[in-house]
Amino acid sequence: MPITTGTPVPVGADAVQMLEYAQLSMDARRVTIRRAVEPGGNVVPRGAEASAGETILEAGRTLGPAEIAVLATFGCTEVSVWRRPRVAVLATGDELIEVEGTPRSGTIRNSNAYSLTAQLRCLGIEPDYLGIARDDTDELRRRVAEGLEREVLISSGGASVGQYDFIKTIFEELQVKILFSKVAMKPGKPTVFGRKGDTLAFGLPGNPVSSFVSFENFVRPALGRMCGFETPELMHIAGELTRAMKQIPGRTAFLPAVATWGDGNWSIDPLPWKGSSDIIGFSRSNALVIFPGTRDSMARGDRVEAMLLPDFFMRSR
Amino acid sequence: MPITTGTPVPVGADAVQMLEYAQLSMDARRVTIRRAVEPGGNVVPRGAEASAGETILEAGRTLGPAEIAVLATFGCTEVSVWRRPRVAVLATGDELIEVEGTPRSGTIRNSNAYSLTAQLRCLGIEPDYLGIARDDTDELRRRVAEGLEREVLISSGGASVGQYDFIKTIFEELQVKILFSKVAMKPGKPTVFGRKGDTLAFGLPGNPVSSFVSFENFVRPALGRMCGFETPELMHIAGELTRAMKQIPGRTAFLPAVATWGDGNWSIDPLPWKGSSDIIGFSRSNALVIFPGTRDSMARGDRVEAMLLPDFFMRSR
Repeated sequence: MPITTGTPVPVGADAVQMLEYAQLSMDARRVTIRRAVEPGGNVVPRGAEASAGETILEAGRTLGPAEIAVLATFGCTEVSVWRRPRVAVLATGDELIEVEGTPRSGTIRNSNAYSLTAQLRCLGIEPDYLGIARDDTDELRRRVAEGLEREVLISSGGASVGQYDFIKTIFEELQVKILFSKVAMKPGKPTVFGRKGDTLAFGLPGNPVSSFVSFENFVRPALGRMCGFETPELMHIAGELTRAMKQIPGRTAFLPAVATWGDGNWSIDPLPWKGSSDIIGFSRSNALVIFPGTRDSMARGDRVEAMLLPDFFMRSR
Repeated sequence: MPITTGTPVPVGADAVQMLEYAQLSMDARRVTIRRAVEPGGNVVPRGAEASAGETILEAGRTLGPAEIAVLATFGCTEVSVWRRPRVAVLATGDELIEVEGTPRSGTIRNSNAYSLTAQLRCLGIEPDYLGIARDDTDELRRRVAEGLEREVLISSGGASVGQYDFIKTIFEELQVKILFSKVAMKPGKPTVFGRKGDTLAFGLPGNPVSSFVSFENFVRPALGRMCGFETPELMHIAGELTRAMKQIPGRTAFLPAVATWGDGNWSIDPLPWKGSSDIIGFSRSNALVIFPGTRDSMARGDRVEAMLLPDFFMRSR
């Protein structure tokens, strides 16, 4: 009796012979078995994958393609899930105009709110964009307070030392407990992070590349964990550096690079760029090479660490 | 004159001093410069990142967070993009019922259409689900023909050798040119792939794990390239195997594993599972360890290759 994959064994049968090893006679009355099959062969016993009462998917598991298949198998057409955190994005700075505008001398278009939104979408989060706050204490305080009503506030700009750079002060005025406000990294040094009750507040730097890198290093791990992901950090790899790099030691640098897999190894090619305002140069990268702050040079052929950008799979160059 | 990051330099000034290295006198009439600044210091010259007429983003680039920032910077609020390919998903098999149903003896719920849909969503593609086709030549031919009206058809089931396993025959009847129909891999051996004009047709195996692995190895690279991604393949890593593995050599195996990054290295821990129908065991993995078909064993501590699952970032265990 022919049995296709996935169908039950007829009553009385204890094994299934593969069609490849069976041959039907010309008169269709005899089957020649060309390779013996053991009892139980090609049969998955009932309950092999799970027993009655067993937990098939623990609470807290994130639902990727494999979990979706498990749920479908067991007919779980509706499951209770946690909602994603509510996240506010606030751009700050007198120099900013919205993307629809034409910059006069002294103004630039707000790009960070858009890259931050796209970075959040890589985590499955759709943020609320609160617009651009001027460098005015009252306005900034009001907008930050509005953002703090969500579970997470991400601001960009106003984070460096400077007369008009007062995001940290505003955070403090609004009872955000500052947990750090300077990081030994570049770009991203003036990142501010604090907490007010269960709300997280990130003050990211205003330079486009700084905002990007700081998000991936600090915001992504925190928000990913809030979403239940075990390893939300950008993927780390180790690979061979294709050219020498130099720096003034002190801060750990995260620099744009192209990572390529071949012959069982990653090669990591640092890209030319013009600093933390050069988002054009940066956009040609698919990875960040990590240059430890303790070193002033790395040689061609050195084994170095890198982080793959969140859209690595989808990148084209 | 105080200048915040991102604002233009006043006429006549050729450098900006960092506030950290300047000190205002008590009467606010004198500034002491505590560290000299070179001409041009802390100033990004006009046109440094791009000159007039320069291409800032080449046609064909996929739009990730960094590209979105570039577009925002230049005020490109609307851009022409290619649409994603139209993809049809077809489940086949008399043994299948829809997820809302309760299986009788001999039937199982259709899970592959759901995992395939979730896998496609990892690529940003929302497929058309064509439902379950019975193992009936006319019905299958009609449904496959319907799928072939899209740019891509993905069927699951009906791909092994067997009286009722005739997806390859149906493909051929419908003028799909078969490009391969057996692969030296496990799971996934009975994968069929063909082409009709510009339409791709994938006949994936019916076992849930086989369907999953075959999708990631064949469908993902093809569809990713159709979407313009340069490296749509699952991320490859090399790492240290945490325990010995054995197999009968012949086919390259892709087996569930947990990959963990630490101390600059990946460790790869193969998971227990019960074969290609065990989607529950498989769902605990975050990677596929690659066991070359030329080898019968791999030792603990061996450097082995693995592929990280598409939702690696978002997984929890």
